[in-house]
Amino acid sequence: MLTLYDYLFSGNGYKVRLLLRQLGRPFRRIELDIDKGETRTADFLAKNPNGRVPTLELEDGRLLAESGAILWYLADGSAFLPTEAFQRAQVLQWMFFEQYSHEPYVAVARYIKQHLPADSPRYEELPKCYEKGAAALAVMEAHLAKRPFFVGDSYSIADIALYAYSHVAEEGGFDLAPYPAMAAWFARIEAQPGYSQITEG
Amino acid sequence: MLTLYDYLFSGNGYKVRLLLRQLGRPFRRIELDIDKGETRTADFLAKNPNGRVPTLELEDGRLLAESGAILWYLADGSAFLPTEAFQRAQVLQWMFFEQYSHEPYVAVARYIKQHLPADSPRYEELPKCYEKGAAALAVMEAHLAKRPFFVGDSYSIADIALYAYSHVAEEGGFDLAPYPAMAAWFARIEAQPGYSQITEG
Repeated sequence: MLTLYDYLFSGNGYKVRLLLRQLGRPFRRIELDIDKGETRTADFLAKNPNGRVPTLELEDGRLLAESGAILWYLADGSAFLPTEAFQRAQVLQWMFFEQYSHEPYVAVARYIKQHLPADSPRYEELPKCYEKGAAALAVMEAHLAKRPFFVGDSYSIADIALYAYSHVAEEGGFDLAPYPAMAAWFARIEAQPGYSQITEG
Repeated sequence: MLTLYDYLFSGNGYKVRLLLRQLGRPFRRIELDIDKGETRTADFLAKNPNGRVPTLELEDGRLLAESGAILWYLADGSAFLPTEAFQRAQVLQWMFFEQYSHEPYVAVARYIKQHLPADSPRYEELPKCYEKGAAALAVMEAHLAKRPFFVGDSYSIADIALYAYSHVAEEGGFDLAPYPAMAAWFARIEAQPGYSQITEG
């Protein structure tokens, strides 16, 4: 059985959990609490030298890190990843957009607001998170105003990657009211077979 | 012919330039000066709403953004991207590692030091860049101490993605002396057919 080194609060972990459920693939979860340093132990660093979850361990012991790489590996050959070359590249474009222009702001604001005490110096990062995060959400909104899903006409791992932190952005202090196309896209995703909430283990 | 919207100083642009040369694919380059706001014009935002280079325009006008997605699209089917599924996922793992854990620190330090006046408030970002950037370089060094290239035994777009900003990290104030395996890997890359320097247009 697949083993997922994971942390329930993590949207990056959620992406993999959601896809595994939608693929109907059984897996066991090993919860590592980032706040307690459980991703920085010698045991875990031997599995992922970059010390991050999610990390996937295959049945034969091979290890794969980075949520985008794990999603690609699991989805390839399924309905969650297109077969046409340019569409596949577009899926990657949106997954890289998420990790570079979206997650470092939208996810980080949520982490600061939900996990750090109010006197943490990291609250100084919030204005930049809101500026850059809102720019990323506006790019998504303009794209979704014209189409049902990010790539082609169907739900893919590009949607999973962008949904994970977007739909909980309000937990980081973002106002999602200016993004009606995104709200409609949330509803389309939440109607997919096998959909489950971020907080489910 | 392919058109690459690009900026010579950009390591992300360099990745695509290097691969195109190594593939022997002719392309024309349109230089956009980020410092002059040339990636934020209405004309360019119509091509890439996220306002970033590199952006690739195909012969038929289709547009693709994000260096990792462009590398994947161009390399698939060539010797620069493995065919085996797990190795392909490992290539993606390293490309996502580069964009999330490496580029935001190693590339940003170089941008600050080379492009901003000494009184810019952004110099305050440098200590974090050096801390997080050195952690990423250490992960690379440990990996390269045991193998010639990042994935499998051959040069791939994972190497291109990580080489781009690593080999010019000293321009950002990093000391590369602690990374001898990385220096040997630089030499292996620089011996590849079609290799060219970052500053060549």
